[in-house]
Amino acid sequence: MNTSAPASTRADATLAQALLAPASVALYGASDDAGKTAGRPLKFLRAAGFQGRIYPINPNRETVQGETAYASLAALPEVPEHVFILTPTSTVLEAVAECARLGVKVVTILASGFSESGPEGAAREQALRVLAKETGIRVLGPSSLGVINPGAGLVLTANAAFAEPELPRGKVFVASHSGSMIGALVSRGKARGVGFAGLVSVGGEADLCVGEICSATLDDPSIEGYLLFLETLHHGDQLRAFAVEAAKRGKPVIAYKLGRSAAAAEMAATHTGALAGEDDIADAFLKDLGIARVGILEALLETFPLAKRIPLPTRDSSLRRVGVVTTTGGGAAMAVDQLGIRDVVVEPVSAETLARFEAAGIGVSPGRVLDLTLAGTNYNVMKGALDIMFDAPEFDVVLAVVGSSARFQPHLAVKPIIDSASSSKPLAAMLVPDAPEALRSLTEAGVPCFRSPEACADAIASLFARRAPGQQPLDAGDLSSAKPLSEAQAYAVLDRLGVPHAPAVTMPLAGPASTLPFAFPVVAKVCSPEILHKTEVGGVVLGIQNQRELESALSTLRDNLRERAADKRCDEVLVQPMTKGLTEVLVGYRVDPEAGPIVMLAAGGIWAEVARDRSIRLAPVTVDVARDMIAEVKALKTVSGLRGKQKGDLEALAKAVSALSQLAVKPDLRIAEAEVNPLMVLPEGQGVLAVDALVLQA
Amino acid sequence: MNTSAPASTRADATLAQALLAPASVALYGASDDAGKTAGRPLKFLRAAGFQGRIYPINPNRETVQGETAYASLAALPEVPEHVFILTPTSTVLEAVAECARLGVKVVTILASGFSESGPEGAAREQALRVLAKETGIRVLGPSSLGVINPGAGLVLTANAAFAEPELPRGKVFVASHSGSMIGALVSRGKARGVGFAGLVSVGGEADLCVGEICSATLDDPSIEGYLLFLETLHHGDQLRAFAVEAAKRGKPVIAYKLGRSAAAAEMAATHTGALAGEDDIADAFLKDLGIARVGILEALLETFPLAKRIPLPTRDSSLRRVGVVTTTGGGAAMAVDQLGIRDVVVEPVSAETLARFEAAGIGVSPGRVLDLTLAGTNYNVMKGALDIMFDAPEFDVVLAVVGSSARFQPHLAVKPIIDSASSSKPLAAMLVPDAPEALRSLTEAGVPCFRSPEACADAIASLFARRAPGQQPLDAGDLSSAKPLSEAQAYAVLDRLGVPHAPAVTMPLAGPASTLPFAFPVVAKVCSPEILHKTEVGGVVLGIQNQRELESALSTLRDNLRERAADKRCDEVLVQPMTKGLTEVLVGYRVDPEAGPIVMLAAGGIWAEVARDRSIRLAPVTVDVARDMIAEVKALKTVSGLRGKQKGDLEALAKAVSALSQLAVKPDLRIAEAEVNPLMVLPEGQGVLAVDALVLQA
Repeated sequence: MNTSAPASTRADATLAQALLAPASVALYGASDDAGKTAGRPLKFLRAAGFQGRIYPINPNRETVQGETAYASLAALPEVPEHVFILTPTSTVLEAVAECARLGVKVVTILASGFSESGPEGAAREQALRVLAKETGIRVLGPSSLGVINPGAGLVLTANAAFAEPELPRGKVFVASHSGSMIGALVSRGKARGVGFAGLVSVGGEADLCVGEICSATLDDPSIEGYLLFLETLHHGDQLRAFAVEAAKRGKPVIAYKLGRSAAAAEMAATHTGALAGEDDIADAFLKDLGIARVGILEALLETFPLAKRIPLPTRDSSLRRVGVVTTTGGGAAMAVDQLGIRDVVVEPVSAETLARFEAAGIGVSPGRVLDLTLAGTNYNVMKGALDIMFDAPEFDVVLAVVGSSARFQPHLAVKPIIDSASSSKPLAAMLVPDAPEALRSLTEAGVPCFRSPEACADAIASLFARRAPGQQPLDAGDLSSAKPLSEAQAYAVLDRLGVPHAPAVTMPLAGPASTLPFAFPVVAKVCSPEILHKTEVGGVVLGIQNQRELESALSTLRDNLRERAADKRCDEVLVQPMTKGLTEVLVGYRVDPEAGPIVMLAAGGIWAEVARDRSIRLAPVTVDVARDMIAEVKALKTVSGLRGKQKGDLEALAKAVSALSQLAVKPDLRIAEAEVNPLMVLPEGQGVLAVDALVLQA
Repeated sequence: MNTSAPASTRADATLAQALLAPASVALYGASDDAGKTAGRPLKFLRAAGFQGRIYPINPNRETVQGETAYASLAALPEVPEHVFILTPTSTVLEAVAECARLGVKVVTILASGFSESGPEGAAREQALRVLAKETGIRVLGPSSLGVINPGAGLVLTANAAFAEPELPRGKVFVASHSGSMIGALVSRGKARGVGFAGLVSVGGEADLCVGEICSATLDDPSIEGYLLFLETLHHGDQLRAFAVEAAKRGKPVIAYKLGRSAAAAEMAATHTGALAGEDDIADAFLKDLGIARVGILEALLETFPLAKRIPLPTRDSSLRRVGVVTTTGGGAAMAVDQLGIRDVVVEPVSAETLARFEAAGIGVSPGRVLDLTLAGTNYNVMKGALDIMFDAPEFDVVLAVVGSSARFQPHLAVKPIIDSASSSKPLAAMLVPDAPEALRSLTEAGVPCFRSPEACADAIASLFARRAPGQQPLDAGDLSSAKPLSEAQAYAVLDRLGVPHAPAVTMPLAGPASTLPFAFPVVAKVCSPEILHKTEVGGVVLGIQNQRELESALSTLRDNLRERAADKRCDEVLVQPMTKGLTEVLVGYRVDPEAGPIVMLAAGGIWAEVARDRSIRLAPVTVDVARDMIAEVKALKTVSGLRGKQKGDLEALAKAVSALSQLAVKPDLRIAEAEVNPLMVLPEGQGVLAVDALVLQA
């Protein structure tokens, strides 16, 4: 077990009970009008038959919706386990403080107007955090629409969508930043035959966050998987701890995260008051922790049954070869196309398998998918085809795409899929027409099934894109005081890690120039932790051909610093041989505030900005993973031996990336950030060389 | 009117009638078993109450499904207008020939086994084409599942999905390469409240193709728009003629085309027997002809109502600024995110508009969208907000995103949208929960509405991405005999077009070297229409510094040709000054077999292959359009003045691209293909220079 995980990530039965199955609930500010926001929770709790005790609190009324109203929290016959505060923003802090005094375990706050709404709101949220920390009361929200646990009849929410007569029950637990989305998921899930074991509107995460809430439920055997609706990556440490534990227990986690576009990232930031990070960092974070990040809303609902059947990929075993069988070439082509644009390649059928089809008397049209054509609209043909595909070694996952017959004649081509529900290989179905009956039968039989090619492909691709959580980083503590090292000191750090750099010597800026241990031509650079952008102050002289020019370069550097950086202290000059590689890259390590330690490999120079051509992973990474990263950077294809061009030493690059990433498990070095830019990639066999580096150390 | 359009593109009332509203139909090979494929058309026609005469033909039976069966076509009391041939592949040709002899106007062929299935099938299809051409009979198929015209009760199809008790009636006409998809669209449309004016399963297009069929219906006032399901771009000339006419009449065309991924393109080719072209050419073709290409299947059904409200963009007027109002920040963020990844930016609200909200007493949360929060779940608030947005000059299109209340309380936030159906600006709605009632009410009121953020964004983005059809190319006739010109001849073509190239002189390969009209250093290249890849035969000598070296270069070129291209005739050498630009690009023109004349601008060198960094348009293009193309090529951002780097002469590049594209309206030049590679982009104000060119002329 990773002892660095926060204590709160261990399943907290007390929290889970108070949050999701409290014996008593108080509705602070309950309205008599069941149609109003503050009136809904009472109505919904009663409608759902909540078995615990419910105390409406309203100082202005004797009764609320026909029930006794209490004047205050103090007036209740007992201390409620969970209080839902429904009153306006200005009253919230006082109410929470009273709850804390009385010993309430959990409060949920409906009001908004906290960190998302200016300095006053931010101060309010800070006060709330302090209150929670000092008193130990746990806070859900602000901006939480509440908590639903269908198993306990707990429909403790102000979300109008829970007027739902029957909540769909199921095996997945939902945590959502957006309160509106828990309603949307329930209604969509109901229409789709998907139910829930619980839903939490997490809101602004002033205290309780997605990770901690989900962690608290990990031991609940009725919860088999998790759906997360994330507006931004926030409280990454808790989310990481949860995801690692969920992976260990084989409980799949599926996430829909906003912020793929710049506009939405900005919006998430203003909407929740969180600072939106870069989406590709969040993307790497989710995938590296084994979370399937879907891109299509419907896939958030539909992916879980397939996730249960496809284990987390590891380097030694990953199931990625999809075989497709269909009764409709056009319909299957949609799925193949959608898989293709997500880099999932449909495996063509082998000659051996084709021969088995022929032997079984099943005609197939030639091509990438097994197209049974209209003749496949027949129980025996489809069942026979599926059985052959389950046996065929070229397929890891089988997708059956069914055409028009699925609507009125599901016994023809859908029934054989249902009868294959316990197949040895993961099986999924996609229905081309609108076929609600067939969809329901497949869902009830536990067969992963999809009603759109986009959701189908998104589900499969997002499961394939997961990576089993690797080596976890070690906690380096607070690095906020990190300061830059000089380039020479930075090279010393690279030396400890084993990241090669160009030879370098330092000499006094004041001169005289020392004799060099390497040949001319060389470059001379000012060397000071106070000067990070050397070229901007004229701090670099290139192409120095001899000792005399070196002497003169020192003088030039002195002049330039005097003119353009008089306030910076600089005593040394660093001299290196001129190095030219086949191409240059940027390799960076940093401790992201949410994602934790990450390592990045990016195209060098202007291309990085033009094309945002980069690959990111949670650090540390093995050399194997670094090879995957290299394959993801398009610019590096120019030195991969394409079109007879010279090959770069990509193996040495992989080693360097992995070496730099080891900072994540060397907390004693106290490095917050290390950027090697550029790292020159030399021809194959000649290695890589850092020729500049910036390291921030605490 | 474009006189080069094929005669058959003019609305052909006779064809439309025989195909879609025949007075009499024969079912050739009708089965007595209504559950069998060959039995379905009779059952469906009767169930739909088809008013025309129906003749089942089956030589083996007295009756078919209780109706008199005829022994042969010749035995019928009249010549049917339309014959649906339901018999196996081997019998088809004979049946068609008999139909032609009798004077049948249209036959539809159900059987497959034509060009998609090997040489024998290809020969069969060729025979079918010849038969159609020689006799004038029109053929739908092969592999057609038939034709549906709900208005005429014509459900002439073998697609099992048409067991549908009530076909949804509407204003859009569907043409689909895939027969299965017409069933899928009807079932999905019915579930979604979308109906159809007609559907045709086009199949293999041996004769009648998507373009011609749709053209034939253009004068039908009951048809207001078109949905196309395309497996590949085929019969582009007919599709172009149809799209240009549809654009003139303001009838929107929406297409879903397979082949975005390489695997699906390959599959479409084997499935339909068509040769799959490059998808980005097809994409440019569709957009340049004003066709909205959607990427999400559901958007194919949902886009039409919005298409009616957003006119085709032109250079002078394009509506692209989307304003979003919502009751749910999280839900709206999904739409904003999906729009953002499709390059549609949601316009932030102006200070003036915010002031109007304040004056109206409508509170909004700050940010990119107008978030009314839960308070917006109120008729007056939402209606007031919409009215202000219709007036706000910063928005061209208004999108309202409604949260949980849409499910059970549509009177709160959905009703005000319905009451704005006749707004002055295009209005659309997206519902976050599953809310079928609200969706139905919005659809019935004619308000474009969406049930997923993906389809919503896809619809909007695909409409914005359309371009009004520009200048149409002139028919250059058959260019299949086109042959390469020498580089010197190619420059002469560029001169006529006004595409600048580096100065060039030719001299005899045999020598002696002439005196040059420009300064050294120069490059000498073998110049022959027989040698297309000069470097491969050692046919280029770079960096020639003086007359003596030029003489020796000629000798080197002679030696190299003798050794490496002894069979090629070459008399001349072309000499040019060495030219270095800031960057190099490829500009190409060619007559694509399906798309017609296209012009392409691509990143030069290895980047083109690594990143497929290119922009394509139908030729000819204006300089304005060429500027748009430049903006689409990422590599050109490196010379756009970014980060203080030197700017390239992109204005001269735009002129050169436009100039080359004019080949499309110069049929007298008989150019099939012209590739300038590389075209050097010089610093701003210094122009561009072609330094090599390959031209194929017929």
